[in-house]
Amino acid sequence: MQLPSSLLENAVNEFSRLPGIGKKTALRLVLHLLKQDVSEVLQFGDTISRMRQDIKFCQRCLNISDADICSICANSSRNQHLICVVENIRDVIAIESTQQYNGTYHVLGGIISPLDGVGPDQLSIEPLISRIQKEETEELMFALNPNIQGDTTIYYIQKKIQQFSCKVTTIARGIAFGGELEYADEMTLARSITNRLPIGQYVK
Amino acid sequence: MQLPSSLLENAVNEFSRLPGIGKKTALRLVLHLLKQDVSEVLQFGDTISRMRQDIKFCQRCLNISDADICSICANSSRNQHLICVVENIRDVIAIESTQQYNGTYHVLGGIISPLDGVGPDQLSIEPLISRIQKEETEELMFALNPNIQGDTTIYYIQKKIQQFSCKVTTIARGIAFGGELEYADEMTLARSITNRLPIGQYVK
Repeated sequence: MQLPSSLLENAVNEFSRLPGIGKKTALRLVLHLLKQDVSEVLQFGDTISRMRQDIKFCQRCLNISDADICSICANSSRNQHLICVVENIRDVIAIESTQQYNGTYHVLGGIISPLDGVGPDQLSIEPLISRIQKEETEELMFALNPNIQGDTTIYYIQKKIQQFSCKVTTIARGIAFGGELEYADEMTLARSITNRLPIGQYVK
Repeated sequence: MQLPSSLLENAVNEFSRLPGIGKKTALRLVLHLLKQDVSEVLQFGDTISRMRQDIKFCQRCLNISDADICSICANSSRNQHLICVVENIRDVIAIESTQQYNGTYHVLGGIISPLDGVGPDQLSIEPLISRIQKEETEELMFALNPNIQGDTTIYYIQKKIQQFSCKVTTIARGIAFGGELEYADEMTLARSITNRLPIGQYVK
């Protein structure tokens, strides 16, 4: 694609380096920005730059934060002895949007995946262990994606913390609400049968 | 969607104002940028801002340009008496990528579409007419999308310039290369029969 201006070409190249955005989509986005007011586009560029420069990661749970300690960790009305272990920040946002969880988080920054070259050392597992020790955590709840890598990560961390008197749980796996039994995969259906719940607990 | 940082939230809001990008995609893009080096993200923001501030539109054909006159208009080896009328800059890029056209362009900035509230006054039709008069254009070739709005725009401009001795043509409409006759719509098929070509002209 031959572009009539090097300024335009640079902008298209920058956009097309974002995930899921090819050259044609990048051009569409850049031409859209060209139609906007100069001030709006300057604000766009400035907001992105400032976000990257000024954003912090919570020193305790590694969640994204405007301050040294994130708003969740700093909230004393939340249960500070319950830690939910998640893979990334998107999972924090997903769980927070349920408004059903009142503890803190710990963001691993990935999951153990030897095929992708990700081992335990690249994840924030050591900080999690020292945090459990220091804060006398009562419960560690895993909310990792249900796959082999997720299960491996759970198994690894569980082994590492078995000397502490910390309860270890994982979010329930089973048939999703609105799902249909006949289309569920065998593994999910089998697990949901093994882990069946008393009706009283289900409707609670 | 509750985000843990106002810096993050502002960046997501800016991205989600782009066409075809919702909140979830915007968040994915922003989290991707967060993983990049600070210098790379600053360059991203700077490139976008500079593009909008410094880009110019060719004073002759209204194509995007780094200078007052675009590289196509400034190229003396191109036929300066042949003007291809297009709707927008994307069409210029599409035609240039064929490497089959050696004239100049005129970017209308849209097409006449009363339903969308776009009349002739909002398009660069007056500059086109004065350009034809001044430059003694030999041929005006329309390359507009084949629909009612495109045909209306062609008809309007043709009426306006009939006093000049300028040949008016339009790019051929017919069955696309690789297309199948049985799936072509009736209008296209009918036109391609009406405008059938001598074989000598077709294979030229």
